[in-house]
Amino acid sequence: MAKIHKVSPFAPKELAVLPPIAGVRLATAEAGIKYANRTDVLFALFPEGTNSGGVLTRSKTASAPVEWCRKQLAHGNARALVVNSGNANAFTGWRGKEAVEATARYAASAADCDANQVFVASTGVIGEPLDASRFKDLLGAMARDAREDLWPEAARAIMTTDTYPKLATKRTLIGEVPVTLNGIAKGSGMIAPDMATMLAFVVTDAPIDARALTKLCQRHVQQTFNSITVDGDTSTSDTLLVFATGGAATAGAPRIMDADDPEAALFSGALLALMRELALQVVKDGEGISKLMTIHVEGAESDEAARRIGLAIGNSPLVKTAIAGGDANWGRIIMAVGKCGEAADRDRLSIWFGDIHVAREGMRHPDYNEAAATEYVKGRQIDIRVDAGVGQGRATVWASDLTHDYIAINADYRS
Amino acid sequence: MAKIHKVSPFAPKELAVLPPIAGVRLATAEAGIKYANRTDVLFALFPEGTNSGGVLTRSKTASAPVEWCRKQLAHGNARALVVNSGNANAFTGWRGKEAVEATARYAASAADCDANQVFVASTGVIGEPLDASRFKDLLGAMARDAREDLWPEAARAIMTTDTYPKLATKRTLIGEVPVTLNGIAKGSGMIAPDMATMLAFVVTDAPIDARALTKLCQRHVQQTFNSITVDGDTSTSDTLLVFATGGAATAGAPRIMDADDPEAALFSGALLALMRELALQVVKDGEGISKLMTIHVEGAESDEAARRIGLAIGNSPLVKTAIAGGDANWGRIIMAVGKCGEAADRDRLSIWFGDIHVAREGMRHPDYNEAAATEYVKGRQIDIRVDAGVGQGRATVWASDLTHDYIAINADYRS
Repeated sequence: MAKIHKVSPFAPKELAVLPPIAGVRLATAEAGIKYANRTDVLFALFPEGTNSGGVLTRSKTASAPVEWCRKQLAHGNARALVVNSGNANAFTGWRGKEAVEATARYAASAADCDANQVFVASTGVIGEPLDASRFKDLLGAMARDAREDLWPEAARAIMTTDTYPKLATKRTLIGEVPVTLNGIAKGSGMIAPDMATMLAFVVTDAPIDARALTKLCQRHVQQTFNSITVDGDTSTSDTLLVFATGGAATAGAPRIMDADDPEAALFSGALLALMRELALQVVKDGEGISKLMTIHVEGAESDEAARRIGLAIGNSPLVKTAIAGGDANWGRIIMAVGKCGEAADRDRLSIWFGDIHVAREGMRHPDYNEAAATEYVKGRQIDIRVDAGVGQGRATVWASDLTHDYIAINADYRS
Repeated sequence: MAKIHKVSPFAPKELAVLPPIAGVRLATAEAGIKYANRTDVLFALFPEGTNSGGVLTRSKTASAPVEWCRKQLAHGNARALVVNSGNANAFTGWRGKEAVEATARYAASAADCDANQVFVASTGVIGEPLDASRFKDLLGAMARDAREDLWPEAARAIMTTDTYPKLATKRTLIGEVPVTLNGIAKGSGMIAPDMATMLAFVVTDAPIDARALTKLCQRHVQQTFNSITVDGDTSTSDTLLVFATGGAATAGAPRIMDADDPEAALFSGALLALMRELALQVVKDGEGISKLMTIHVEGAESDEAARRIGLAIGNSPLVKTAIAGGDANWGRIIMAVGKCGEAADRDRLSIWFGDIHVAREGMRHPDYNEAAATEYVKGRQIDIRVDAGVGQGRATVWASDLTHDYIAINADYRS
């Protein structure tokens, strides 16, 4: 059973309040997969005509639900989503495939749709067969009880080692019609998304084509979920799915068929903001986090090179432990820039902690004040800025630190 | 000042006894660079005609001494080596370059040779200017006092967070003449060598050409220093240098001019064995180590792909913490194989802990016994075997685990 760990110091004081989206109904239940006395299944039902887009992990050992979703994204037609926590149904072979198919069948029967219109996601322990029969009777009752106002419950049911539920909402316009985007996410450890975070789901009433949705997700994921890291470990289950009911079309919102449609610009911006907010909520709940690093990299060969340099810093155990210890050990940032393989000019490199210019032109800044830097690094949120000195590429990466609590959480996760 | 940390459980009960190599004289001293009450400078003097080869870090922020050695390896003519601990002289700009040049000048004057025949290596804090004037008077006295029997003292003087000195020796034949290879190394944290470990020095009386020496180092480094990891953080100072006095030629050993010379085969094997022994001593002193993982990867697309898969496992914080906690959480090995980007067939992947076949054909082995695996993982030395299921490539990687002690050591290294 999951132990109760110290709540992240970045836990929001109040959860975001998500408005209902017409026709989108939610239910949660206790299937007893791994956890006792808490919900571990989410069932979301979407109205007819809902489109779906998304991005999935690039892991070579992707889970059975990820493979199922990849197949269903090809047509992008969605009526339901089933998510369970406690078991990832990853590396479960033919049994895992059967478990996903059975889950989709049970959900289709409960939601009165085709099994191929059901999306499935699972996170938790890897390698343990998932007993889908637990869902058989549960899903029918859940479909009957499902309501439009259960977003906080939905966010809670998908948690694993998370210390708080993750919710965000945005309003924007398509044409002159207001549309809503609601999102929930989970994730705390095994976070170094390579396409998307562990699990994030966005629902909107925007009328938008499935392929356009996927294209927008792909466009925004590099700057959001793929720019956060807790431990550099990429999950087998990373999944970002967006469901668009198209409900706003009845109020006159024009239908978006292409990601580059000018009518999509505001929606695209709102989706980016929502994805960033969810990604930040995930890294701020990084296992054992005591401090958040925001790493701005500029002057790299390309934006992608800047992101890689940022991740090399954010993943370095030596940088992470120095920050955790309140030690302004900027030499370790130099090391991380040097090791990551991207171009950097050692003799033009600059580094800042917040506004403190630490290093420039290949050596310590003449005005560098160690006491001021140490004071700065004792804070809760640490801004690190690096100019690689070779080009115009830039990126921002968010990372948690590495603390005793991370070790405590992970040295006995399964026991 | 460096704190005294718990000695590694893998510390050797007895240090290897290194025989003298004719004409190779050693001296150590306290220069007070960072540590108090311990030696922190090594001065090694080599006889005329000594050749040198080696490999240096690929870091983009390599230290000033690394750049100096790169220049001197081009001619491969060596008469002295100066090594200091406590300050890496890395990211110190023109001052760092001047400090190395001054050190080489002082050493040349003491050893009565040319400054270009002096090799220099430094490890310790990054970004702090190194005051080379400390060596000015010291080196002359050290040259006078230098002796052939000070190998243990030499290994001690170059330590930083190491908990034991690292020494190894091999005997082999060239032609019918016995030759000796003596090696010392240091390294405990910031260990994920990308060419060589932090610092390792080998001295031999073999008569061998400088280019042939470098070629042999390059050939062996992938399977030795580049196959160990403590924290995935690559140092700015990684340096492996081999000095060959050629002394055995006077006893009739044929001179080796090429790495592929049949006469070099035994020497090459002995050098490989020595490098492996030193690399293992480094990883066994990994910061905070409680357990050693030996990760055998087979069935990969190439040997290099196998090495990368092994390093992905050995660097994963989730694998490392599970092993530290005695948790047979093999799902995290699946994750690490999946994330590393090398080809692997999820449905043909096999995993073993020691002789326990954990997973095969894409799922848990039908006979898998969790209790036996848990018992196995409680041991001190954990063998992990992975068959990637796609080819013939194989490699072995050695890694330390990730413990509370690693955090304790690194959250306050500079303070």
